[in-house]
Amino acid sequence: MGKYFIGVDLGGTNIAAGVVGDDHAVLARDKKKTKAAGGEERVIERIAKTVLGAIEAGEMDKSEIGGVGIGAPGAIDIDKGEVINAVNLRWNNYPLADVLQKELDLPVTVDNDVNVGTWGEAVAGAGRKYNDMLGIFVGTGIGGGLVIGGDLYHGHHHTAGEIGHTVILGDAPKGRRTLENVASRTSTANLLKSLILSNHASALTEITDGDLDNIRSGALKRAYESRDPLTVEMLHQTAEYVGIAIANTLTLLSLPCAVVGGGVTEALGEDWLKWVRKSFKTHVFPHELDDCPILASELGDDAGVVGAADLARRRLA
Amino acid sequence: MGKYFIGVDLGGTNIAAGVVGDDHAVLARDKKKTKAAGGEERVIERIAKTVLGAIEAGEMDKSEIGGVGIGAPGAIDIDKGEVINAVNLRWNNYPLADVLQKELDLPVTVDNDVNVGTWGEAVAGAGRKYNDMLGIFVGTGIGGGLVIGGDLYHGHHHTAGEIGHTVILGDAPKGRRTLENVASRTSTANLLKSLILSNHASALTEITDGDLDNIRSGALKRAYESRDPLTVEMLHQTAEYVGIAIANTLTLLSLPCAVVGGGVTEALGEDWLKWVRKSFKTHVFPHELDDCPILASELGDDAGVVGAADLARRRLA
Repeated sequence: MGKYFIGVDLGGTNIAAGVVGDDHAVLARDKKKTKAAGGEERVIERIAKTVLGAIEAGEMDKSEIGGVGIGAPGAIDIDKGEVINAVNLRWNNYPLADVLQKELDLPVTVDNDVNVGTWGEAVAGAGRKYNDMLGIFVGTGIGGGLVIGGDLYHGHHHTAGEIGHTVILGDAPKGRRTLENVASRTSTANLLKSLILSNHASALTEITDGDLDNIRSGALKRAYESRDPLTVEMLHQTAEYVGIAIANTLTLLSLPCAVVGGGVTEALGEDWLKWVRKSFKTHVFPHELDDCPILASELGDDAGVVGAADLARRRLA
Repeated sequence: MGKYFIGVDLGGTNIAAGVVGDDHAVLARDKKKTKAAGGEERVIERIAKTVLGAIEAGEMDKSEIGGVGIGAPGAIDIDKGEVINAVNLRWNNYPLADVLQKELDLPVTVDNDVNVGTWGEAVAGAGRKYNDMLGIFVGTGIGGGLVIGGDLYHGHHHTAGEIGHTVILGDAPKGRRTLENVASRTSTANLLKSLILSNHASALTEITDGDLDNIRSGALKRAYESRDPLTVEMLHQTAEYVGIAIANTLTLLSLPCAVVGGGVTEALGEDWLKWVRKSFKTHVFPHELDDCPILASELGDDAGVVGAADLARRRLA
């Protein structure tokens, strides 16, 4: 059995692979475009290339690799290694583990991409002191993962953790009710754009060179740090909503902590996270949970690779 | 070891005890007032009397009883058998299992009252075909319990299941944000009262003989069944909110079913529950969960006694 395991973060746009040691250190990496439009076989070929690229980058031999863990988007049947449904790859009931195992001649295990990110933070990141935690990632969308009793929790339909799709504004019009509807980067950027177009002044106009269709996390960070009033108001509102969803989850599950990551969180940092914490404290129940730590993710983009490699080590070794 | 187990439902007002066979049938019962104001020792004495009363009612001998399970309000440490905090009994860190064990000379186990009701429905009621479920009880307040992987789920602070305290109207004023704030019988009755006092016509005025401080489930049932427009509108709104909270829970945990009970649910029946289901379907994610059954509780007031007795059988036998 090899001493290293490979973690793969399979996204709709990019594939990242890393060779990971038993101390969770990423020793070597590779990254390629997914080219999902090319179909399943093309994507498999590109995953295999990325995995082999990472091994090569580490000047290792395939015999040193114990197995490959993949975080893939959508609902995953981890026992079968199947992607049940991944909208952005257009995959349905695709036997990813089996196909890739043949392609690479290495054992393969699969889990959901947000789950593996959560797992990375749980074993080697901000949640490593806790046996139970919520992982929540605020970026283009909002995803979540649950660690319960020291294991990832998948649920009956293999879709657990969909915190972005929980309703927090039940009286709002359709399309403005869920956490993702009102607090993802996409929804925040759209709302900012429409406010600016209806004559609200904002530093974002200058920061984006007037390209308001393209308000990315970096632009939000610059506007937030320059204390642009419109951006600050909007992002404190999203922090309020994120805090509510975390409070709801910890209230329902009596979890001892939450780890917050994703592009928006990383761009805005502690200044923003303290507003999330304030909202959490206001809304959580009972008071015993007031002091649950709401932690910033520590692994950033590596959370998926580290988590997937650790799942491979546990499941395949 | 005795062949029967006793389940006790300890409420702020009443104590109900039942002798339960291994087929979950309640063979004999007794009921007394809690008299919580009399202090802990008085309540213990009354629990013991109720337990012995149920044994006597069944013409059984104490030697036939294998143990006693109690559902108590508040946060419970099930390993220690302690009531950590029960507001309506004014108990803090009270070693209920130990004290009652000495008083009765029978082994005793304790769990939260809503948990034991959920467990009753899970083992002998509407949820018996499912290994995972949400139990939600809509009455004076709104409580919930979670069965995950065939076991009650308690969480890190022993307070899991507090669905009534999750926020579903994040933009509403304080006191109107949580499920319990807007869908318990208490909140529904208060809102109806204030609407009627501000000159909205309602059959409730006649049904309650003008005593609008006392709109109980029976009055709601009569007004709802007579299609009083104000009551119907209000109760369909509460059904919408209850459906949202169930959807949020099943979305987050990917559970295969929910069982809905409590005084309001039992009074209004399937006519009301179909509005809960409609809301659930609108709000749950992903579509794989659309068809999860939202079931009416089957055990009614017996759920707690049956669940507590079964927990005693499992933990003490």
